[in-house]
Amino acid sequence: MGIDPGSHCTGFGIVEERGRHLTGVHWGSVRNTARRSFPERLKAIYDELAQAIQTFTPDAIAVEDLFFAANAKAALKLGQTRGVTLLAAVHAGTPIAEYSPLEVKQAVVGYGRADKHQVREMVTMLLHLKEKPEPFDAADALAVAICHIHSAGHPASLSTKRAP
Amino acid sequence: MGIDPGSHCTGFGIVEERGRHLTGVHWGSVRNTARRSFPERLKAIYDELAQAIQTFTPDAIAVEDLFFAANAKAALKLGQTRGVTLLAAVHAGTPIAEYSPLEVKQAVVGYGRADKHQVREMVTMLLHLKEKPEPFDAADALAVAICHIHSAGHPASLSTKRAP
Repeated sequence: MGIDPGSHCTGFGIVEERGRHLTGVHWGSVRNTARRSFPERLKAIYDELAQAIQTFTPDAIAVEDLFFAANAKAALKLGQTRGVTLLAAVHAGTPIAEYSPLEVKQAVVGYGRADKHQVREMVTMLLHLKEKPEPFDAADALAVAICHIHSAGHPASLSTKRAP
Repeated sequence: MGIDPGSHCTGFGIVEERGRHLTGVHWGSVRNTARRSFPERLKAIYDELAQAIQTFTPDAIAVEDLFFAANAKAALKLGQTRGVTLLAAVHAGTPIAEYSPLEVKQAVVGYGRADKHQVREMVTMLLHLKEKPEPFDAADALAVAICHIHSAGHPASLSTKRAP
């Protein structure tokens, strides 16, 4: 399972590996609708992710490291989203891995500066999807899951990587 | 219940109001011991706070706003701690209020630039404690609870205040 926590929208995606064949099983996103209070939005993110983890029981959860935010206020907000994301994973007892945006793009597109359209194109192709995953955050989350599967030969990435 | 989320230690404290008399019912802190992975530390904070909320069923939970961190990396880390703190409160269905460090110091010491020793002195006095609460983070959390009780005549602070 890949997760891309963001301040406006958190994407998640489940990828299954059968031999060398990858399948996109399920994906979606949780929007931070402004009508809800901020704590309620955090609850919606946690609850939705916990539900998906319970339903699909992934072997591992790969979370995209956050971009370094432009300022401390933005980083604080992103951090809160990321905190409940990691909590949903650790409450489920699922191993957690973390990848930088650069690592994800390298693994999926082969080019660290790929844009979100290129990432989504490659995700659509690698998972043999009939339509492009929507929104971009869900496509990014699927890319994080693919990145983890590609890196899984290197177990260091799973157990020793720690959040800052 | 007052909570002071911090990157090294999260303090919490329960204050009961009977008429005009305030009592310190319970307080403590969750340390971020370095032996645990960061997601496990987030889990420890959430679990301990959820346990205290379940045990003491506070009428409201007052959380101290974070200082604006020196840099985005520090803010990201603090944000993650704060995210699981707010989640523990919202999962319990308890109303959440937020106060800045300035508001807390004004309410407890009467002076917005009071230092942590002065805050703890006043908390010890106002709650008629025999000993100074340890660590400072727990004393700060009790101060946040006292600040909320002092502000409770102004219901705006309870329901309309939102996290950034």
